[in-house]
Amino acid sequence: MIGAGNIAFNLGNALYRKGFQIVQVYNRSIFSAEELAFKLRCEATNNLNDIRKDADLYIIAVSDSALPLLANELNLDSKLVVHTSGTSSMDVLHPISSNIGVFYPLQTFTKDKLLKFKQIPILLEANSTENEDILLEIAGTISNDVRFHTSEERRIAHLAAVFACNFTNYMYAVAESILEENGMEFNLLYPLIRRTAKKIKRNDPRSIQTGPAVRNDQITIEKHLQLLNNNPEIKELYKILSNSIQEHSLEFNIKKKL
Amino acid sequence: MIGAGNIAFNLGNALYRKGFQIVQVYNRSIFSAEELAFKLRCEATNNLNDIRKDADLYIIAVSDSALPLLANELNLDSKLVVHTSGTSSMDVLHPISSNIGVFYPLQTFTKDKLLKFKQIPILLEANSTENEDILLEIAGTISNDVRFHTSEERRIAHLAAVFACNFTNYMYAVAESILEENGMEFNLLYPLIRRTAKKIKRNDPRSIQTGPAVRNDQITIEKHLQLLNNNPEIKELYKILSNSIQEHSLEFNIKKKL
Repeated sequence: MIGAGNIAFNLGNALYRKGFQIVQVYNRSIFSAEELAFKLRCEATNNLNDIRKDADLYIIAVSDSALPLLANELNLDSKLVVHTSGTSSMDVLHPISSNIGVFYPLQTFTKDKLLKFKQIPILLEANSTENEDILLEIAGTISNDVRFHTSEERRIAHLAAVFACNFTNYMYAVAESILEENGMEFNLLYPLIRRTAKKIKRNDPRSIQTGPAVRNDQITIEKHLQLLNNNPEIKELYKILSNSIQEHSLEFNIKKKL
Repeated sequence: MIGAGNIAFNLGNALYRKGFQIVQVYNRSIFSAEELAFKLRCEATNNLNDIRKDADLYIIAVSDSALPLLANELNLDSKLVVHTSGTSSMDVLHPISSNIGVFYPLQTFTKDKLLKFKQIPILLEANSTENEDILLEIAGTISNDVRFHTSEERRIAHLAAVFACNFTNYMYAVAESILEENGMEFNLLYPLIRRTAKKIKRNDPRSIQTGPAVRNDQITIEKHLQLLNNNPEIKELYKILSNSIQEHSLEFNIKKKL
């Protein structure tokens, strides 16, 4: 396991629990390497030259910016090497080995909460059908949802994930700020947030869009904008999002009728 | 029960299941009135003059635009009358009765899925402590989370809910469009969406903001913007949201350190 961040912690743990032996953790900071290695009952190193040559699979779970740098310093001949990134193409691994692939779990991870992988989609790519088969077998051990996608498609999935996760969390953050500024508690919104996330499993989100913007309720929109007068940045955001929903509204209506 | 929309269906059902007798459903369209009345085993009417005068509580669950119109046509003397709106002030009910209040369940409702109210926050307001007590008792029967808030605070909660629900759903809709345009399935994002919604129960959303914007990953942002070249509206939205996150990033960092 090369890297000891959020993905490395979660993926390493998931593999370890399914009986895979993790032989070594490499990380630039030895502290994190040791922290993960301790969990996975294996050795740790922060020296690239000490990376063992006898593993069956090398998982590189580092940031997209670190990936090309690492690729230029590491040579593993014909060992199977994968990265775990949604954005980086598979080709970035070419300098490292002749057998390469991608093992991208589409989820948001943190170290302090190790997730179960059963339902997490794992997007695979490999440079040969043989390597595809190996990755499919490993991924299938930890997840019920394994899919093959090209680097280009994976990048699209990652872009969509930015909206569904990062920007969504930002909406939560803005909601909390608004409540906090007015001395109200964010937990007021927990059931609403959970329900909103749940609804889309049974309905196309475009068909269930609600709120003042989609129903062209200009009176409520104006009231909301007034409430945001002392917060011009959020006010602007409210306007832009409402406009964007309204420009799309035809599409929403069509979808509703289908 | 005055109104037979999504809130009326859900609230009526929740009260009925707890043993409250709903005596009548009024709705402008008799079809919807009868549909709900059938569920609540009571009579239906679409004639304002036929509204019974012997109920203990009148719940007006109509749209914000219909509320003032209705208030001008309806007179219920000193009967206790509440509306269920997040945006409208309690005062809009003054023409109807001398005993008024608000009974606002903070959730997104649909007719086809009747929700349990146990965890749904109900925001109450009334024009006397006596009326407050009556509403508290009723609300407490169906929900464990009853809070008193002024009309102004309720409006703030509703504004925050637009971000946490309507705008969030719009993020899901955009994510789905992006995937669909590229022949990929939206269900790829279900676990991510669920997890993102779950995380904020244990963490301030500002402290767990992730993604290219908050970590100033300009390379990934540029790649994403390129992928959106044939979709200028969504591209603009991506830019604006990323900028907004970056302008807030100091605040995010401070929160992380606390």
